[in-house]
Amino acid sequence: MTHHGRSVSILGVTGSVGQSTLAVIEELRGQGADIPVEAITAGQNIAALADACRRVKPRFAAVSDPSLLGAAREALAGLNVDVGAGPAALEEAGARPAAWVMSAIVGAAGLTPTMAAVRRGALVALANKECLVSAGPLFIDAAKAHGATLLPVDSEHNAIFQVLTHPDRVEKLTLTASGGPFRTASRETMARATPAEACAHPRWSMGRKISVDSATLMNKGLELIEASYLFGFSPEKIDVIVHPESTVHSFVHYVDGSVLAQLATPDMRIPIASTLAWPDRAAVSTARLDLASLGRLTFEAPDHARFPALALCRTALGTGAAATTALSAANEIAVQAFLESRIRFLDICRIVEDALAALEGTEAGLIAKTPSSFDDVAAVDQAARRVAQRIAGSLAAA
Amino acid sequence: MTHHGRSVSILGVTGSVGQSTLAVIEELRGQGADIPVEAITAGQNIAALADACRRVKPRFAAVSDPSLLGAAREALAGLNVDVGAGPAALEEAGARPAAWVMSAIVGAAGLTPTMAAVRRGALVALANKECLVSAGPLFIDAAKAHGATLLPVDSEHNAIFQVLTHPDRVEKLTLTASGGPFRTASRETMARATPAEACAHPRWSMGRKISVDSATLMNKGLELIEASYLFGFSPEKIDVIVHPESTVHSFVHYVDGSVLAQLATPDMRIPIASTLAWPDRAAVSTARLDLASLGRLTFEAPDHARFPALALCRTALGTGAAATTALSAANEIAVQAFLESRIRFLDICRIVEDALAALEGTEAGLIAKTPSSFDDVAAVDQAARRVAQRIAGSLAAA
Repeated sequence: MTHHGRSVSILGVTGSVGQSTLAVIEELRGQGADIPVEAITAGQNIAALADACRRVKPRFAAVSDPSLLGAAREALAGLNVDVGAGPAALEEAGARPAAWVMSAIVGAAGLTPTMAAVRRGALVALANKECLVSAGPLFIDAAKAHGATLLPVDSEHNAIFQVLTHPDRVEKLTLTASGGPFRTASRETMARATPAEACAHPRWSMGRKISVDSATLMNKGLELIEASYLFGFSPEKIDVIVHPESTVHSFVHYVDGSVLAQLATPDMRIPIASTLAWPDRAAVSTARLDLASLGRLTFEAPDHARFPALALCRTALGTGAAATTALSAANEIAVQAFLESRIRFLDICRIVEDALAALEGTEAGLIAKTPSSFDDVAAVDQAARRVAQRIAGSLAAA
Repeated sequence: MTHHGRSVSILGVTGSVGQSTLAVIEELRGQGADIPVEAITAGQNIAALADACRRVKPRFAAVSDPSLLGAAREALAGLNVDVGAGPAALEEAGARPAAWVMSAIVGAAGLTPTMAAVRRGALVALANKECLVSAGPLFIDAAKAHGATLLPVDSEHNAIFQVLTHPDRVEKLTLTASGGPFRTASRETMARATPAEACAHPRWSMGRKISVDSATLMNKGLELIEASYLFGFSPEKIDVIVHPESTVHSFVHYVDGSVLAQLATPDMRIPIASTLAWPDRAAVSTARLDLASLGRLTFEAPDHARFPALALCRTALGTGAAATTALSAANEIAVQAFLESRIRFLDICRIVEDALAALEGTEAGLIAKTPSSFDDVAAVDQAARRVAQRIAGSLAAA
């Protein structure tokens, strides 16, 4: 990586993964690596997009909000960059011929631009969760069909990817979970938890939605779903263990009794650099792990009574791809309702569970079949949001 | 590995590594793997050799003691096995055409039979320490020249081998050490330590020589020397950390901040199976690692004041290959003197240090140059033993 690089695009440059990706590219360029940037995208933050353009000089920059085309052109004037806006421009960013594409747009909006990169058979560094949680089997099938290589960025999946030397000889995977802010909290404390308390994550600085998912352990359940689709293992072969130090990012257990693990300080530049340099490794100046000053790593089984999200995700995986789509959508609605203080913390998992049960009653056909297109996925997603919204509303009114 | 196997030989079948190798072969054969056994060897234990012949039906069996040829023939009569005795028979065992050879003869006696396998370009599972500690650079050069593949069996080196995915991108290795029976002992307690106390290893059941080496941490220093020669890293790139649970068997730190590790229950069948199936993995019924019931893994920097062996080994590596040969030989003499209660525990490292210093004075020519033949190695070894014996004698008389 020091003397040669690959062309890259960054879908979602203004978020924390996008900013860390910029930092890695700048550092490697500083070492002399040739890493041309093809395209970058932002949602609405034109100032951050312009800053990124000045730093890495892409050929193309896109904002998702089509009404911002004029403002973006103005902000990026003189930077020698083509400017686009709206969904077609985001898709073009993924379609442009970069060898490596960081998929870091948050939410369902990331699917189409990422698929544009997948269809080119690109190396896709996958930070967007919806591609797997919402459309897992379809997305994986598309990557296989087009010869795209999926390089997971999420620290847990990246850890597994790094030590998955013998996929056919795996006995199980163990995803590590920090345990979140309520790891040692009583159920009573959790029942009274405010959005601010739920967002106080002990290790990682994250967005509010993901912070709440970390507090419910839904984040880990969603990662279990992602791991199942991404690596092709059934949920029975994927364990979760609580590891408050968040230093071991996951374990792969082999049939000979060997367990391989990846450890690192919690810094997203580490998994990002590993995907950018893959199958090589690049030197980046992240904080190094100091085992002696760390002193200890601890592990405990998750408490399923206080954290029902894990079992919900396992059950949805067993039901099928539509159920995992619905679970993710219902959870988004429930978390939003919690963040707006319309429901209580423990209602989040209840809403997800009840929404899945309701869909299995009223939309049995929809939930039972595997979505055969992204339109099918969108239909399931919308149905789940409607049902979850209704349940959240009735809880809020109660 | 389940449906196909490779022919194997076991040099040193009666020791603990040899017996574990037999157990792995029997288990894989029980799964239907075809693993013909070409040759096995023993020192003097004819009963154990006969037992091994009954279990795995080798074509050739050898004892190292030439006076035992008649007794061996008698004990192995009717087992349809060719029988040999003496050094030439041991060498024949290594030379016979097995694809995979377990080198588990203890001590310098293992060198010649192992070299016979190396010269054939075999896969050599290396449990014998002297090949690397005593004759490191010569042995490594021979393996390269003959296209032999060295597969380390020692749990620490095996761990590194398993996660050495990018040898050119390694920042450092960290060998884990249990800390031995005197990890938390005061220097005063160590000064009074008896052979029985020094041999009470907390985790592994081992021979008395290796147990004492574990108590002085000389074992870890020798492993540092082995790792340096085997993996081609300078001593500055190899750390040692005390890890009392002996669960993480070593770490490899990469330039991107990722640290990869192998963990397992302390069972030699695990590294042995990994070398036998390499580059695949085989299913063996070892106790599985249970992280939640383990609860915690702890790490601390070694105390160099109480354990000078580590620094001695680093210094010898810096001096050169003859110094590491001399260190290993002097240590054997010192440990033997301690086990016979002729010297005290803290004298062991003093003898090694003084022997190296004396050799650098009186045998400067011998120590300064890199041995260019195994005869050179033997000359250094003998000189070091003489000097160490003399120093041990003067300490015993004092």
